[in-house]
Amino acid sequence: VGDGLRVGVLGCGNVGAALCRLVVDHADIIQARAGTALDVVAVAVRDIGRTRDVPVAADVFTMDPAAVVQDPTVDIVVEVMGGIEPARSLILDALAAGKPVVTANKELLASHATELLAAAEATGVDLLFEASVGGGIPLIRPLRESLAGDRIRRVLGIVNGTTNFILTRMTEDGSPFGEVLADAQRLGYAEADPTADVGGHDAAAKAAILASIAFGAQVVAEDVAREGIAGVTADDIASARELGYVVKLLAVAEEEGGAVAVRVHPAMVPVSHPLASVRDSFNAIFIEGAAVGQLMLYGRGAGGGPTASAVLGDLIDAARNLRGGSRGATIGTLVRKPVRPLDELHSRFYIAMDVADRPNVLSQIAGVFGRHEVSIESVFQKGLGDEARLNIVTHTAHEREMRAVLAEVRELDVVDRVQSVIRVIGDDG
Amino acid sequence: VGDGLRVGVLGCGNVGAALCRLVVDHADIIQARAGTALDVVAVAVRDIGRTRDVPVAADVFTMDPAAVVQDPTVDIVVEVMGGIEPARSLILDALAAGKPVVTANKELLASHATELLAAAEATGVDLLFEASVGGGIPLIRPLRESLAGDRIRRVLGIVNGTTNFILTRMTEDGSPFGEVLADAQRLGYAEADPTADVGGHDAAAKAAILASIAFGAQVVAEDVAREGIAGVTADDIASARELGYVVKLLAVAEEEGGAVAVRVHPAMVPVSHPLASVRDSFNAIFIEGAAVGQLMLYGRGAGGGPTASAVLGDLIDAARNLRGGSRGATIGTLVRKPVRPLDELHSRFYIAMDVADRPNVLSQIAGVFGRHEVSIESVFQKGLGDEARLNIVTHTAHEREMRAVLAEVRELDVVDRVQSVIRVIGDDG
Repeated sequence: VGDGLRVGVLGCGNVGAALCRLVVDHADIIQARAGTALDVVAVAVRDIGRTRDVPVAADVFTMDPAAVVQDPTVDIVVEVMGGIEPARSLILDALAAGKPVVTANKELLASHATELLAAAEATGVDLLFEASVGGGIPLIRPLRESLAGDRIRRVLGIVNGTTNFILTRMTEDGSPFGEVLADAQRLGYAEADPTADVGGHDAAAKAAILASIAFGAQVVAEDVAREGIAGVTADDIASARELGYVVKLLAVAEEEGGAVAVRVHPAMVPVSHPLASVRDSFNAIFIEGAAVGQLMLYGRGAGGGPTASAVLGDLIDAARNLRGGSRGATIGTLVRKPVRPLDELHSRFYIAMDVADRPNVLSQIAGVFGRHEVSIESVFQKGLGDEARLNIVTHTAHEREMRAVLAEVRELDVVDRVQSVIRVIGDDG
Repeated sequence: VGDGLRVGVLGCGNVGAALCRLVVDHADIIQARAGTALDVVAVAVRDIGRTRDVPVAADVFTMDPAAVVQDPTVDIVVEVMGGIEPARSLILDALAAGKPVVTANKELLASHATELLAAAEATGVDLLFEASVGGGIPLIRPLRESLAGDRIRRVLGIVNGTTNFILTRMTEDGSPFGEVLADAQRLGYAEADPTADVGGHDAAAKAAILASIAFGAQVVAEDVAREGIAGVTADDIASARELGYVVKLLAVAEEEGGAVAVRVHPAMVPVSHPLASVRDSFNAIFIEGAAVGQLMLYGRGAGGGPTASAVLGDLIDAARNLRGGSRGATIGTLVRKPVRPLDELHSRFYIAMDVADRPNVLSQIAGVFGRHEVSIESVFQKGLGDEARLNIVTHTAHEREMRAVLAEVRELDVVDRVQSVIRVIGDDG
């Protein structure tokens, strides 16, 4: 330990350990870019007895995270422990003590960003969280700084690696969801309880953070309309391919007329769209700005190395600002903006339904669509007799009307069931 | 004009005019993010008589750019006039006067970055140039700040929209180079004299800037080994497709063992590589970092709106720093590093040659490859008799050995001519 800035790290899982290694391996780069060395002087862990592949002295570990934050010799705090508490209280304490904080905590930011940013504003210190969305992909700094003068209209993101891996395998191997999920679990790409990923909860948290940053708005995970991928069938994926689309789990955040709309759901994306070629566990964020047009930022959305790279970028920023007695660009205070409910949104829809193959089926179904003024773009019938399936793609329609159509269609004698409803994204949205 | 920071703009072409419009249209965003208004108080133009669609008062225009720089009431200078002189002297004068400078000048940065950055260091003011490469795509800030703690190994870029448009049309329509170029010229996508784009000069300038930023190295456009796309045939593109590749004009910058290597040339990129789906006039930079892994940043590489968006992002950064009495992250001083000549580099190669269809042709040709220890991965023969063509893909080989092979192969009686030599990029490089 030398005379560099003194860093306290809360948590030593994948990201914390990778960070400690990077601080040592990239000491030359850090010195050059931060203008100072960084010394990890304290690492708070849950189990101090565990052996760790981390290049720090044994006496650096502690089981008392509060002591790390309160240690007057710790200049900067890195929070990579995850979860709401005690992370939230520890960060608030650090900020109150005037210490810059770097965090990778998606769950916390998606629920308490307003409070945390206000605390950072109150004491005028840096609170940086590039790693909380999109792992190693630079997202927050580009949105906050590079595009500072632009008006962001929409952000479309593939922000969950597990579901993108599953959908990629379903697309490329033609396997059904359950089989691919089991494979992913065996390979360690999916958790034993896959709900957080498959149900879209992880993506919804990230969507809330992206919307907060892109629009400066108070958006939390509960504001995000959410649908997972468990209902996506091999049939849907095959139909998508025939129509020139691939199925992706998208986080969509928009601002229009001062109101924001944020949702997570499976979507058909045209094969020519840049998001369509984001394969396996990669993440990407597609941004539409008034002046800049279309942008995409692509990379590894998870993993120790990529996430630690983003944490270290923030840490160098905070260190440089601390040395210069200045403060980095801030998000400022998040503003309360109306959140538009899903019902008011609109998109194109793909609907797959099992129908009886009788002469007047289509006219009955089309009649329902027509009465609700949902215009049909194309219809394909597959199979014959009792095995018939109808695939319908609509023109742009409101969610509310679409829901009314589906309720009514389900009542028709000729419709056995509505198998899938998937929103369809155009090349221009 | 109010009490905001006072901005002097040098040049009022596409980018300057778009910037002036954005400063007015996005005044609310600028105030929120910069913490101050920005007022464009002077715009230097070449022809003051020309009518311009720019929302500034007529007396703001001047034909004396030096007066704009010297005006003591101008706080920040934006240089969007292009070219080396007088842009270089004007920027140096502004920096010497302690005024932050934002520039979009690719040509100047590609030749004088070392001098300009040293001048900025000397007076401790911001010199920002996000818009000089990749138009509206955030590249320099992510490389300089987000990845500040990472070790960049390689940057692969599609940085010229005109050539990417031409190669995309050749790929998707199967048309020959000359025909697509003529179309592009008619549509305004290519200049009447297309040399700067087609010959790879524009891409080489951008490659020099990217290498300078990624590696902190003194690299100028003349250090860049350069080959354009005029020699790429419809045949090459068809062969690429059969092999699972698309042809792209790539800027490649690498650092290994303290030496940098920078080149621009057509390359076969696997269809599964993220760069393969960058179509038409879009640009993208693919970055490989030690910790972050693979990243790609994609968007509009040119045009008034996107470029002005990047300039305004820099301008807000400079304004915020000026108000805070601080300075943004700097590139620092560029270091002289050895530049490895093309001869020492290696890659896989695709070679197309017209040959006589005689029994011992392949053994003669393969013999030459073998003697120079260039290992052949695959061989395809197309056509018969005097029309026969041989397509060879090699394993990784040195440029020097490949050149020796080609010289010797050209001497063979059975070889009519070597039509094309295109480097081949793998999924992992």
